Amino acid sequence: MRKMFLFMMTSLDGYMEGKDHDLSWHHVDEEFNIFATKQLQEADTIVMGKNTYQLMESYWPTPQGMEDDPMVAAFMNTMPKVVVSHSLPEVQETAYWKNIQHIKDNVAEEIKKIKEGSGKAVIVLGSNNLCVTLLQENLLDEIRIMVNPVVIGEGTPLFSGLGKKPFTFRDTRKFSNGNMLLTYYPQ
Amino acid sequence: MRKMFLFMMTSLDGYMEGKDHDLSWHHVDEEFNIFATKQLQEADTIVMGKNTYQLMESYWPTPQGMEDDPMVAAFMNTMPKVVVSHSLPEVQETAYWKNIQHIKDNVAEEIKKIKEGSGKAVIVLGSNNLCVTLLQENLLDEIRIMVNPVVIGEGTPLFSGLGKKPFTFRDTRKFSNGNMLLTYYPQ
Repeated sequence: MRKMFLFMMTSLDGYMEGKDHDLSWHHVDEEFNIFATKQLQEADTIVMGKNTYQLMESYWPTPQGMEDDPMVAAFMNTMPKVVVSHSLPEVQETAYWKNIQHIKDNVAEEIKKIKEGSGKAVIVLGSNNLCVTLLQENLLDEIRIMVNPVVIGEGTPLFSGLGKKPFTFRDTRKFSNGNMLLTYYPQ
Repeated sequence: MRKMFLFMMTSLDGYMEGKDHDLSWHHVDEEFNIFATKQLQEADTIVMGKNTYQLMESYWPTPQGMEDDPMVAAFMNTMPKVVVSHSLPEVQETAYWKNIQHIKDNVAEEIKKIKEGSGKAVIVLGSNNLCVTLLQENLLDEIRIMVNPVVIGEGTPLFSGLGKKPFTFRDTRKFSNGNMLLTYYPQ
């Protein structure tokens, strides 16, 4: 069984996105990009919900994305990607944006199949509703929460809709821009 | 000018209290009580809002509170306490619960007077609305957020009502029960 872990940015007041999907408060710099590249190298499959997928699709295969961080762009554009969404129209592959699987129904079952496959870990990026489903189905093995040093005041709280759930603390890492990475195992 | 710092517990999803002021998710143990006692020794004045004050008043001066942790109870009961509330009736001192100042109006001005006095630091405990006022008035010099390893799903988000505000990361401390203390300076 492959390990499946989540990477999620949050604000200090616990929001995973601001109003209208605002992510302009994310603290991203060179140290972050090196971390993100190494983290992607742990995995060979990226799983996302609709909003995160559309955000990635509109950035990484563009000239801007490939120029801003060629390493992360190369990973994002070529790695196998899974988008989980009932409402997303058929996904479009291009020369720059490849290897996409679209799960529309039977989410838990389809994700289990992916975990049962061979290969490196499976990384989940952002995607609140998907994370709630994965946690409810005990499919997430680890969560990595990067707390940005900013209060944003409104938005979607981390794991909104999950209800009460305890976690076991695993590890922590401090970034020089003030971000704190906190990692936990779901109980 | 005396330093004024906040100590606040939050859930992993950023709530400082659950529904109906629920704090049953707090992870408290002997290591926490040793930390809490040392932290109180940095200060000689405790500032609280109405809810936190009533919670403290209903616990620390009781036989249960004094038996559960005699050291913390001794500090809480005898240290000078300031409660900030328009709506709280006159505060009652007893043989066990002493040294209480009640601020009803001109909060920023009265808190400034306390900071300008001599002595050790001033500690603020919990109290969302009070914290928002203190942050808006630039009266808080440091915030200490203890992230408990639990998602609670609903409640009052940290600094609810403050809006957007950046912080500078200062330090971190890991607790063996999975709590993480994150400290920041307001910018």
